[in-house]
Amino acid sequence: METILIVGGGLVGSLLSIYLSRQGYRVHLFDRYPDFRTARAPLGKSINLTLCERGFTALDRVGAGDLVRAISVPCYGRVIHAVDGTVEYQPYGNRREAIYSVPRNELNRALLTLALEQPSLVCHFEQKCVEVYLDQPAVTFKDLRSGELSHWRGDRLFGADGAHSAVRQSMQRAQRFNLVQEYLDQGYKELNVLPADAMGWALDANAIHIWPRGHYMLIGFPNLDNSVTLALHMPFEGDPSFASVRAPEDVVHLFERSFADALPLLPNLAEDFFSRPEATMVTIRCSPWSYRDKVLLLGDAAHAIVPSYGQGANAGFEDCSVLADCVAAGGGDWHAGFASFEAARKPNADAIADLALEHFHELRDLVGDSRFLLRKKIERRINELFPERYMPLYSLVSFTNMTYVEALQQDRAQRHLIDRVLALPGIVERLENTEEIREAIDGLIDGQAEAAMGGHARLP
Amino acid sequence: METILIVGGGLVGSLLSIYLSRQGYRVHLFDRYPDFRTARAPLGKSINLTLCERGFTALDRVGAGDLVRAISVPCYGRVIHAVDGTVEYQPYGNRREAIYSVPRNELNRALLTLALEQPSLVCHFEQKCVEVYLDQPAVTFKDLRSGELSHWRGDRLFGADGAHSAVRQSMQRAQRFNLVQEYLDQGYKELNVLPADAMGWALDANAIHIWPRGHYMLIGFPNLDNSVTLALHMPFEGDPSFASVRAPEDVVHLFERSFADALPLLPNLAEDFFSRPEATMVTIRCSPWSYRDKVLLLGDAAHAIVPSYGQGANAGFEDCSVLADCVAAGGGDWHAGFASFEAARKPNADAIADLALEHFHELRDLVGDSRFLLRKKIERRINELFPERYMPLYSLVSFTNMTYVEALQQDRAQRHLIDRVLALPGIVERLENTEEIREAIDGLIDGQAEAAMGGHARLP
Repeated sequence: METILIVGGGLVGSLLSIYLSRQGYRVHLFDRYPDFRTARAPLGKSINLTLCERGFTALDRVGAGDLVRAISVPCYGRVIHAVDGTVEYQPYGNRREAIYSVPRNELNRALLTLALEQPSLVCHFEQKCVEVYLDQPAVTFKDLRSGELSHWRGDRLFGADGAHSAVRQSMQRAQRFNLVQEYLDQGYKELNVLPADAMGWALDANAIHIWPRGHYMLIGFPNLDNSVTLALHMPFEGDPSFASVRAPEDVVHLFERSFADALPLLPNLAEDFFSRPEATMVTIRCSPWSYRDKVLLLGDAAHAIVPSYGQGANAGFEDCSVLADCVAAGGGDWHAGFASFEAARKPNADAIADLALEHFHELRDLVGDSRFLLRKKIERRINELFPERYMPLYSLVSFTNMTYVEALQQDRAQRHLIDRVLALPGIVERLENTEEIREAIDGLIDGQAEAAMGGHARLP
Repeated sequence: METILIVGGGLVGSLLSIYLSRQGYRVHLFDRYPDFRTARAPLGKSINLTLCERGFTALDRVGAGDLVRAISVPCYGRVIHAVDGTVEYQPYGNRREAIYSVPRNELNRALLTLALEQPSLVCHFEQKCVEVYLDQPAVTFKDLRSGELSHWRGDRLFGADGAHSAVRQSMQRAQRFNLVQEYLDQGYKELNVLPADAMGWALDANAIHIWPRGHYMLIGFPNLDNSVTLALHMPFEGDPSFASVRAPEDVVHLFERSFADALPLLPNLAEDFFSRPEATMVTIRCSPWSYRDKVLLLGDAAHAIVPSYGQGANAGFEDCSVLADCVAAGGGDWHAGFASFEAARKPNADAIADLALEHFHELRDLVGDSRFLLRKKIERRINELFPERYMPLYSLVSFTNMTYVEALQQDRAQRHLIDRVLALPGIVERLENTEEIREAIDGLIDGQAEAAMGGHARLP
């Protein structure tokens, strides 16, 4: 029985350990944090994250989906908060499709709990990776309690150790390794607020809340206890920024001016603000992801993305599922398994990295923009009329298992369609006239599909 | 007196140490190689490199230029070797401008010798950087002879430790650090050959020799003893490649087929080929280059480029000269000095990285191309007729101290001019008719300058 070492017991490492132990491997999972069963779990860099269809598909394959649904809040749309306090609700889809808000630590705990039930799996806590030997493969860990070093050798080594992966760093030194590590000049701080029902917002409990303000914004994620976790996104420099907001009155003034309707939810705003670290947002692209047939990177270690599309964990979970198939198909040929995994996932990792960056700018600059909102409205209408023939990009990414590359390609074709619908005379008024608009759009979709088939056949 | 630590006693570190000790700082220079005065210098990854005007300008400011000229071979042009054995000589300029071929180790030795003459400078050999403390700043070194660790603290720390910089790696972990590390899928092997006069090549001793063959090529650099160092550039995969050339007969066959006129110079070809490592070619772009007012990267550590333009050492020497000015202008404010250095150099580092990649493809694909050669011929003719108004890009980069950014901008404007000259009827024949062609081109330059001034005013 082959022995597999997994560095990192976060979301991806713990799900991977379940997949691989189910496939009959002896798995050693190493995590630098204390055992969650005996210690209070540490705060991750992000309190809340969102899961969607593709994430649950990967979780369901090993029976983890329902465990996770039980600790998640379904969100059926966004609530956009304008500066004047008015709100607009944008459903994510026409069929009550939802993304799920879940606390990172609880999600991690659920997956580790399931992992520890696997008979061929051992989890080692408080182990910091200090040296990686790619050729063997082997790892030296430092026990963070005793300071003692231990050396582990396996048949395969998986680096699921996140955006700042130590396994990746050793690959970076060892071979021709291409790497792009790119930070946004923005960061965010998370603030916990009172239960939302204290405010009496009509749509609170099952929506993501967004206060778009140009170069800064506030986002709110609902929790099971009806509270909301707010994330304040701002540039590091400029006005307002983490550099310019220095005194308690600066924070309060910023909220009074820009997020007045959120202020009552934050009785300890200034204290919270200054006690929390600023989280950074990084995109990591690299290749190759594997070292011979010995070592493989996956999850954020291979392709960290900015959090704006809510796809980081979903993409990482998909990695585990695809990898399990590639390993099975390889039938013991790990070189082939790693190669087909990277061939399958790298283009998708690049696509979602691009989409996440694009969505970051969209959320920041455009969500409050009237023309953008009209496009969204038209999209939802077309989707409603032709649910099989048109799905908005956000839906393709969040509510299907279509690959990110395909979603991106389909979206690019659909953008042209929206441009043409927008150009129809009196479109705003006609949008509600079902029969007439159905006919008009039907013609456009047909025309575009024909043109696409004559050219690159990009439309579905 | 401030104490400065420099990690890396290579070309840039040793020149920097001279500059800074001349400015009155106490300098400790650390190098991982043995003392060249008592040990045989190790082979670097490149045996030969080329220096040009901007490199010598930086060397001359501290009196190192003549020491280096004495060990360099001036090359006044390129000799292009066709597959059929015919050669074409392309002078670099019309005024016997030269680039200088120099062995890396001898150049390094000359600079270290000069460095060791500085009274406030101490050089520590066989010291490997094992840990960097950015905040202090401080470095832990391991003595490669005794294995002992020593800890050094200074007022400033400079990372001149090359493309795989340990100082940069610590910055990569410590802050929002943007990094692009990109390898070419080609490498090269260097082969030493017999003195060239054994072959009786007419132009040998003072030219760079190039055998362009599409995706692979051979380049020859002359040495003072009349020998030539050959560098065989090939992809890592494909045919031919370092993967496909596996047996002694493969190497010989490759040379018989593609570099027949070089074969007699290589009596130990197969043996040489298999005993030498393959060198990789990497481009590094990163930012920021400094950590507060404590640590600064420069040279390859900040901006490694592929070697095809022969600008790596030149750009690194320019760094030293510009940094000395920025430090002096900062008047003790290192934060300002580092900021103005990065503002001045980063755009130029990016520009020469782009140019080097472009030149790599040009050398590889185009040097043997007839249309490309015609463009070069026209360029030289225009330069001859209008030496003050037109200089080819290669000349701007190699024979002036114009910034790389300005050279790149000027070249982009000049390309349009060449396109228009190429479109002149019967240009090939008219090129030798001095008066007529002067008039025709004069009109084009004037027209373009006018257009540019109306638009973006890019022409000089």
